[in-house]
Amino acid sequence: MRWLQFTPPGGKTTHGTLDDQDRVHAVRGLPWEAHEATGQIHALADVKIEVPLLPRTFYAAGLNYVKHVHEQAARTGKPLNIPPQADIGYRAVNALVAHEEDVVIPADAKQMEYEGEVVVVVGKKAKNLSEREALDCIFGYTIGNDVSERLWQASDRTFWRAKNTDTFKPMGPWISTDFDLAKAETRVTVNGEVRTEFHTGEMLYDIRTFITRMTRYLTLYPGDVIWMGTDGKSPLIKAGDVVEVDISGLGVLRNRFVAEST
Amino acid sequence: MRWLQFTPPGGKTTHGTLDDQDRVHAVRGLPWEAHEATGQIHALADVKIEVPLLPRTFYAAGLNYVKHVHEQAARTGKPLNIPPQADIGYRAVNALVAHEEDVVIPADAKQMEYEGEVVVVVGKKAKNLSEREALDCIFGYTIGNDVSERLWQASDRTFWRAKNTDTFKPMGPWISTDFDLAKAETRVTVNGEVRTEFHTGEMLYDIRTFITRMTRYLTLYPGDVIWMGTDGKSPLIKAGDVVEVDISGLGVLRNRFVAEST
Repeated sequence: MRWLQFTPPGGKTTHGTLDDQDRVHAVRGLPWEAHEATGQIHALADVKIEVPLLPRTFYAAGLNYVKHVHEQAARTGKPLNIPPQADIGYRAVNALVAHEEDVVIPADAKQMEYEGEVVVVVGKKAKNLSEREALDCIFGYTIGNDVSERLWQASDRTFWRAKNTDTFKPMGPWISTDFDLAKAETRVTVNGEVRTEFHTGEMLYDIRTFITRMTRYLTLYPGDVIWMGTDGKSPLIKAGDVVEVDISGLGVLRNRFVAEST
Repeated sequence: MRWLQFTPPGGKTTHGTLDDQDRVHAVRGLPWEAHEATGQIHALADVKIEVPLLPRTFYAAGLNYVKHVHEQAARTGKPLNIPPQADIGYRAVNALVAHEEDVVIPADAKQMEYEGEVVVVVGKKAKNLSEREALDCIFGYTIGNDVSERLWQASDRTFWRAKNTDTFKPMGPWISTDFDLAKAETRVTVNGEVRTEFHTGEMLYDIRTFITRMTRYLTLYPGDVIWMGTDGKSPLIKAGDVVEVDISGLGVLRNRFVAEST
């Protein structure tokens, strides 16, 4: 099942399911709670795709693939920093934009890069899950682009503007409830040219490990998301570039980068 | 005006205002949006005080008072780290608890401390505010206790469990729309004994500076909160201790620390 949030022409933003004929079936209610079909059906091409959900808490694994850790060490000139344990981080909802919405490059940003990531969407309240139970709280998966300004990431005390400037967090296009992580490949293209490719499932700490460790200390809630990190390296992205994050089985998240109008 | 969120006996959680006779007047709607009195009035003593709001984004200034920066350097053995600019950080909503709710000390936590903080509650959508305009987006102020486990803060790659373990973020008891920061004193007591006192307004970077800088890059939304940091040093807190954060004009936020039941 594929769940999206959308706005029909002249209508109200709502959740719905996407069928194999690219038709969107509107529902009343949240995907991970009781809901019912409204009977309204739209062609996907006729609706505005929205961010699939506004997370309650927006978690991000950060460094979680081997090549990316090496790339970070090379870029910053700092020693190799393999995380010794699955310590989760945070991003902020202000920065979210939907599939096909623009990423706005601030006038003073100099080193924009992408990070294509698989995103876990939590569907059930969960605390103290065992490794065996850990995946039971997952509702589905979507795609995220953890857009980053690397100079701010190096200079600032936190990631607040390096990673959470408005529009720096494309997410979507929809949530898939059926996803085979072990078989998935992440492929990121810039203006149609493949620039990054990796096995989505080859994480340093897998989803099960993160959820088990997180729920030892914190409660996960329906509508929380966990961005699982990226691998490899991004070229510099400039205004006009179109970045597509394609994860097999999840779809393609496409966003154009544009210059801030000053 | 003082706004609280509360649950009346056998009733539904709602917002309301608190008058000078300790009566709570329930309203329909959010304090910072259109709302109307329901006509229901309760004695404060009869209702359960809830967290005054569930923030959309939970911002925290972190190191923002001079003595606290010195104390941190002394504690960690690291060089003095005066933040060179107002870089905001984040906390997580899972960790919030209300006035009079317990802070649960995890079985493996060893070094629990408090941080009494003034909290800004945003009431208007805001982007690119000038210094002159910066305070216009504020709805009111409340109190926060940024409970921290210092060993995890030192050992982990992020603050996820050091500061965001469930129950580590008491906030409340209510939001005051009239508050004179310049005259305010923060006083933290443990079991009735004063352990920390400071001038609430003597920040490294004031609220105006933070909001101006933040809204250069990000949009603030109604229901966002900004915790402004703390000064001084906390003693070690153990199970059974009652911590009260008193900020003049805002009230008292009181929470008991208890051991995790294992």
